[in-house]
Amino acid sequence: MFTDVIAALATPAGRSALAVIRVSGEGAFEVAGKLVAHDGPVLAGLEPRQTTLVTLVAPDQSEIDRAMVTVFRAPASYTGQDLVEISCHGGLLVPAQVLGSLYAAGARRALPGEFTRRAVLGGKLDLLQAEAIGDLIDATAPAQARAALHQLDGGLSRRLEGLREELLELLALLSYDIDFPEEDEAPIPRERVRERLDLVRERVERLLATAPAGERIREGALVVLAGRPNAGKSSLFNALLGTSRALVTEIPGTTRDTIESATDLLGWPVRLADTAGIRDADERLEQMGIEVSRRYVAAADLLLLCAESGRALAPEERQILADRPAVLVRTKADLVTASPRAEEGISVSVITGEGLDRLREAIADRLFTDVGGGSDLEPMLTRERHQVALARAAAALPAARLELGQGRDPVLAAHHIQGAVEALEELIGVVHPEEVLGRIFERFCVGK
Amino acid sequence: MFTDVIAALATPAGRSALAVIRVSGEGAFEVAGKLVAHDGPVLAGLEPRQTTLVTLVAPDQSEIDRAMVTVFRAPASYTGQDLVEISCHGGLLVPAQVLGSLYAAGARRALPGEFTRRAVLGGKLDLLQAEAIGDLIDATAPAQARAALHQLDGGLSRRLEGLREELLELLALLSYDIDFPEEDEAPIPRERVRERLDLVRERVERLLATAPAGERIREGALVVLAGRPNAGKSSLFNALLGTSRALVTEIPGTTRDTIESATDLLGWPVRLADTAGIRDADERLEQMGIEVSRRYVAAADLLLLCAESGRALAPEERQILADRPAVLVRTKADLVTASPRAEEGISVSVITGEGLDRLREAIADRLFTDVGGGSDLEPMLTRERHQVALARAAAALPAARLELGQGRDPVLAAHHIQGAVEALEELIGVVHPEEVLGRIFERFCVGK
Repeated sequence: MFTDVIAALATPAGRSALAVIRVSGEGAFEVAGKLVAHDGPVLAGLEPRQTTLVTLVAPDQSEIDRAMVTVFRAPASYTGQDLVEISCHGGLLVPAQVLGSLYAAGARRALPGEFTRRAVLGGKLDLLQAEAIGDLIDATAPAQARAALHQLDGGLSRRLEGLREELLELLALLSYDIDFPEEDEAPIPRERVRERLDLVRERVERLLATAPAGERIREGALVVLAGRPNAGKSSLFNALLGTSRALVTEIPGTTRDTIESATDLLGWPVRLADTAGIRDADERLEQMGIEVSRRYVAAADLLLLCAESGRALAPEERQILADRPAVLVRTKADLVTASPRAEEGISVSVITGEGLDRLREAIADRLFTDVGGGSDLEPMLTRERHQVALARAAAALPAARLELGQGRDPVLAAHHIQGAVEALEELIGVVHPEEVLGRIFERFCVGK
Repeated sequence: MFTDVIAALATPAGRSALAVIRVSGEGAFEVAGKLVAHDGPVLAGLEPRQTTLVTLVAPDQSEIDRAMVTVFRAPASYTGQDLVEISCHGGLLVPAQVLGSLYAAGARRALPGEFTRRAVLGGKLDLLQAEAIGDLIDATAPAQARAALHQLDGGLSRRLEGLREELLELLALLSYDIDFPEEDEAPIPRERVRERLDLVRERVERLLATAPAGERIREGALVVLAGRPNAGKSSLFNALLGTSRALVTEIPGTTRDTIESATDLLGWPVRLADTAGIRDADERLEQMGIEVSRRYVAAADLLLLCAESGRALAPEERQILADRPAVLVRTKADLVTASPRAEEGISVSVITGEGLDRLREAIADRLFTDVGGGSDLEPMLTRERHQVALARAAAALPAARLELGQGRDPVLAAHHIQGAVEALEELIGVVHPEEVLGRIFERFCVGK
């Protein structure tokens, strides 16, 4: 199972100089070899990782392309299986003909994420690393890529693996207690076991506490522009997106009523939402004096409350600043030419560019100070799956500790610790029930 | 000039497993080497064509990705220069960060087609082969790819080179005549020169005659669906596109009023146009009884005149069949259940699928019989540029022949032959004035 030969395009479809097609599985060299013209080399005989120019032919021996092929011999490949990379001319037709000929030669169309799934099954990557590859490809801000690379490097896996090792040692210590209950004095005093368990618990809790920041990094922090009509929200929205437009991606599922763009703010991932359109789109929404959807306000990691420079704040605006994580933005600063502006908030002008950098820094400070910049990133939980599994482990540990009390049954303590170990193993993928794999890989793109 | 280090994405932008970035020029190894983490290999020391896993870092040494790099040492590379291929993770951010770091390291953003232009300047490809690479990438039907591969293989170049050699030999023979005019009897009788010139002329004419078919292959033949309203044109349009939808591309510049799709019809490139929308869109168009735009009718390589099965043809429909390259299609054949249909034309039903294959074969027969299938394709002129240059050569040869007559000046004959040689050289790119290169490469995509 999962050893048959699969093939897929590893680069996006479109007009380009090159396209890369991957072929993996038992017999990948034979299958891909059927595309090599008869005067070409035998793929199985090529030196691994050595790029070779070959002529590719269709099943009827008509020429498809001249392309570079590289073979990777199991287990030294991405999937851990025999793997062939074909770098052919791009465009619509040539890659399609190469793939069609591979299917005719016995390859199967790869499922989304199947190459990476095989890498996990082959022990080349653990589950967390596989997820990190997806995150790296989906990244739109450097901080996301950095977190993904750290996870790909095994930072989180090593941390979890360390916790698991520690728990397994505790289980070994407990087994003495269990196997020789008649002895008055256990070889390792329970007190010692409890102390070590407390240390593990503390480390689990600390890791669990990274989940909000980790998810914020992976998903992007939601920053919502709020404020009265004509407070300059849409202009500020465009100004903040400004130079990073090239990396702006549309968030699937958002409607035109709310303009939401994933962007890169000083290297941090931010989903910037301009709710300006909502009021017009839905007259049934209450007029709250503040033109902003309650749903977005509730979900926001940070509100940018926009108010024109020089205008006194209304009570409901003060209320928002008191109740919510919010930054007060004094817009249209260029219109206030008189006296030094001593009013509270960050004065910005989208015309002169004044204050925009200060605002960006303020946003990044408010959202990401707990994350820690630089490359010495601490491991973080970046997905709900991580949080759920680790929370299960965290919940089992106090239960185990209770059973380590005087006169309690160490077998029950061991049972709870075992539960925590299993939660960690599911997270790393030491055991990987099919349904866990399926959930993870179905969201991958084909060819990955 | 054209030796500085350039970099570009060689694969399309988008979400994918891999992206390939190319770096070429004098110093490409040093520039790309600045992205390799300090514990990584020195690129100039790597074995050429050997794929190596490295960690890529940004100018601030923060990690960007772990990627595969392959070096190609001049002249054994695509461009003929030192070249590095970086195969990194795909998506929006990682390739952008790699490119950004390459620019920071001293690379310049490549112009569209600049890699291939360098390949031409470096003598790795001639002009015709460079054009063929563009055609191969833009191909949507196998016949286009086959023609492009043939041209890339040098088929057309060799044919033209042969003609040029022949003309140069004639010039050498004439030079006797010119240098020793006092001798009564030229060492090679002019009669012999004339005969050889006639042979060359014949071959030039024959090649020139391939231009219509060649351009039809490269551009796709224009097949226009015509017929009265409700004759089943749009259904037939969709049915003909049918299974090859995956390869359908939108033709830039066409409006919604005319639906035109480049498609693959039994392996041949066809631009299928359904003019159904025109009548509604532009009431000012004359109602000709036949719902079809005159512009499309005039440009069509073939009309599919649609008429319902069992209906007698109108005089204007008979007129079209007589005047134009057209195939009569009897639509809605499924509605005529009675007697054997002995009427003229090809009966089709988009409901039952009846007749569609026969229609496809008829279209291919009418459009491409003069091309010759299989892989033993004859060289063809595929662009207007080819036709213009070769026509110039063809026009010079009768003029040369005239001057080879008794009592004529062989210097003038040599002058005309020289003109023909130059036309051929411009075509192959033996001489390549900058403006010729500029015209050709500006239509390429970046990274090629």
